[in-house]
Amino acid sequence: MLKFSINKSLFLQALLATKRAIASKNAIPILSSLKLEVSSSAITLTGSNGQISIENTIPTSNENAGLLISSTGSILLEASFFINVVSSLPDVSVDLEEIDHHQIVLKSGKSEITLKGKDVDQYPRLQEVGTSNPLVLETKLLKTLIAETAFAASQQESRPILTGVHMVLANQEFKAVATDSHRMSQRKLRLEDSTTEFDVVLPSRSLREFSAVFSDDIKTVEIYLSDSQVLFKSEHISFYTRMLEGTYPDTDRLLTNQFETEVVFKTESLRHAMERAFLISNATQNGTVRLEIEADKVSAHVNSPEVGKVNEELETLSQSGSDLTISFNPTYLIEALKALKSESVTVRFISPVRPFTLTPADDAENFIQLITPVRTN
Amino acid sequence: MLKFSINKSLFLQALLATKRAIASKNAIPILSSLKLEVSSSAITLTGSNGQISIENTIPTSNENAGLLISSTGSILLEASFFINVVSSLPDVSVDLEEIDHHQIVLKSGKSEITLKGKDVDQYPRLQEVGTSNPLVLETKLLKTLIAETAFAASQQESRPILTGVHMVLANQEFKAVATDSHRMSQRKLRLEDSTTEFDVVLPSRSLREFSAVFSDDIKTVEIYLSDSQVLFKSEHISFYTRMLEGTYPDTDRLLTNQFETEVVFKTESLRHAMERAFLISNATQNGTVRLEIEADKVSAHVNSPEVGKVNEELETLSQSGSDLTISFNPTYLIEALKALKSESVTVRFISPVRPFTLTPADDAENFIQLITPVRTN
Repeated sequence: MLKFSINKSLFLQALLATKRAIASKNAIPILSSLKLEVSSSAITLTGSNGQISIENTIPTSNENAGLLISSTGSILLEASFFINVVSSLPDVSVDLEEIDHHQIVLKSGKSEITLKGKDVDQYPRLQEVGTSNPLVLETKLLKTLIAETAFAASQQESRPILTGVHMVLANQEFKAVATDSHRMSQRKLRLEDSTTEFDVVLPSRSLREFSAVFSDDIKTVEIYLSDSQVLFKSEHISFYTRMLEGTYPDTDRLLTNQFETEVVFKTESLRHAMERAFLISNATQNGTVRLEIEADKVSAHVNSPEVGKVNEELETLSQSGSDLTISFNPTYLIEALKALKSESVTVRFISPVRPFTLTPADDAENFIQLITPVRTN
Repeated sequence: MLKFSINKSLFLQALLATKRAIASKNAIPILSSLKLEVSSSAITLTGSNGQISIENTIPTSNENAGLLISSTGSILLEASFFINVVSSLPDVSVDLEEIDHHQIVLKSGKSEITLKGKDVDQYPRLQEVGTSNPLVLETKLLKTLIAETAFAASQQESRPILTGVHMVLANQEFKAVATDSHRMSQRKLRLEDSTTEFDVVLPSRSLREFSAVFSDDIKTVEIYLSDSQVLFKSEHISFYTRMLEGTYPDTDRLLTNQFETEVVFKTESLRHAMERAFLISNATQNGTVRLEIEADKVSAHVNSPEVGKVNEELETLSQSGSDLTISFNPTYLIEALKALKSESVTVRFISPVRPFTLTPADDAENFIQLITPVRTN
């Protein structure tokens, strides 16, 4: 039966990272538990919601952990409750010891708390992913790529495949694409040394959790694939997510180099103007903003008969091509601009009924977004 | 029709303070509006939820307001929406002008937003309170008194009078008491110069809102009373709250100087122990903590058969009197200790079935709290 002592705040930090995979209400009740496994050289915390799983390992070699293992073993504990109890303890360290009937005693300072746990046999087996030949990426690069694409995935389960991000690695090019059929975001990354190839669709929600769990001090991440799961691995954290099944739509056919009108905006100033437009357009169902591009002026207009209207001249850095009037949901443009880190953005239009594209003025090759207009009149 | 220009951030600050009185969903729909009145020397913002009303005045003499009034008038505007629009404006200043049909145009930078408003005649008349012979208090003192008592008022409408704080000023003594019949908190304040006398019950929720609206840079507050309302007034803010009707129970009879057992605890250490106890006791309905006072040891115990148990020795500074075992809901003790600013707390017990009292070790005369035990076995 397990017995160890550990630094409270380091233990708590690992518990909280693991808890990100645990839903307090799950169709499978046992998944609200956290699995605590103690080996002779480390403790491992496991949490899962059936979609993603997180394994967090604290080795005795971690000097900040103050980890002293007296006896090995494993137990399941109600995750939220256990974490609240650990966080309430008075001392800087905590002793944990399993006693009869899957109970665990926590001692810290003069406090002694006994909690009921469960047998680890009740915990489902998490699918395994082989760990050979990883693709190694800078964590920061992968998180940027996720931030630039995952938001554009669909939130609706009507077409499940669109809730994912399509990630393709082929010919030393890593491409990530997401679309909810109203807008699309695609980021490419050149990986000169890579010999790996894959083509997977990963849930955008899993990718956002990955970004939250892998903090910026984790320099690199190893990526492993099985038939149905992907494992993102650092020295002490293993993050598993299932893949989405199905064929991702061909998004390349949506992209064209053709355009009739081009305007370069300051990213932030355009975003603020669209946020004002959204306040008024949002008062009407399916409210849109109308962009008027004329030779001497680019302006935005909203008219929501119930609440009011907006008329606003937009600041531009440059403009070329024909005059054009186009209407769209300002939310899509706001979210697209938030994903853009460059100070200026190039927007290219073909016609009032064809999607328009956004590219950062400084990296048009590798990052492109597309927004579908709304037909009005 | 009104027309003025004003500094955006100062305007926004006043709007947000006024909005604290406005509920987004109110049984009286017009109360989701904010009243904007422009006189020749000031603008006044009014919000109300029927229980409390806030009037915020910005005079032209306020140099930070950059207030230029071109024309007087008044209009009702949907509060949340108007505030979101003002906060989205691009420039540091905003021009407001009423046009035909109760519409208002906001201009800021290159942005022009038109909003629909309503006729002020639709706004209910807020009851008036005469402004002569105020009681003047330090804002900080009044806010402390509220923080020490309002939390102990009832949250339940079954006995509406108990949702209030009983405030009595007589013989130069200001006394505030709140109780939900399980616990009580009473604070007294000596006001040497006061000739005013009153006896009112004010909703604890109103008092908490008052504390949020009157920031610490407002040095003093004037208090005025009518038959049914109280007005708290500073130079630019008028805060009205209705009184609760009915007779407040006689709480003085609950207090006695008699006691059998006295223990002095460190406030914070006792609170943390009770928070741990609460985590476990809370897993059981009506769960309690059992305090055991013995000659050589004071300890706390919880047993929740479903989840686990707590046994904890408590740090004491001193103790006297007979041994005693008493059970109570730890929530009441946690909240009582949070209201206490002193480092140590004196707890006095009569018997396991009689309420026990808490007093700050440094001001036992003026601040006393009382908690009713739970009979077990």
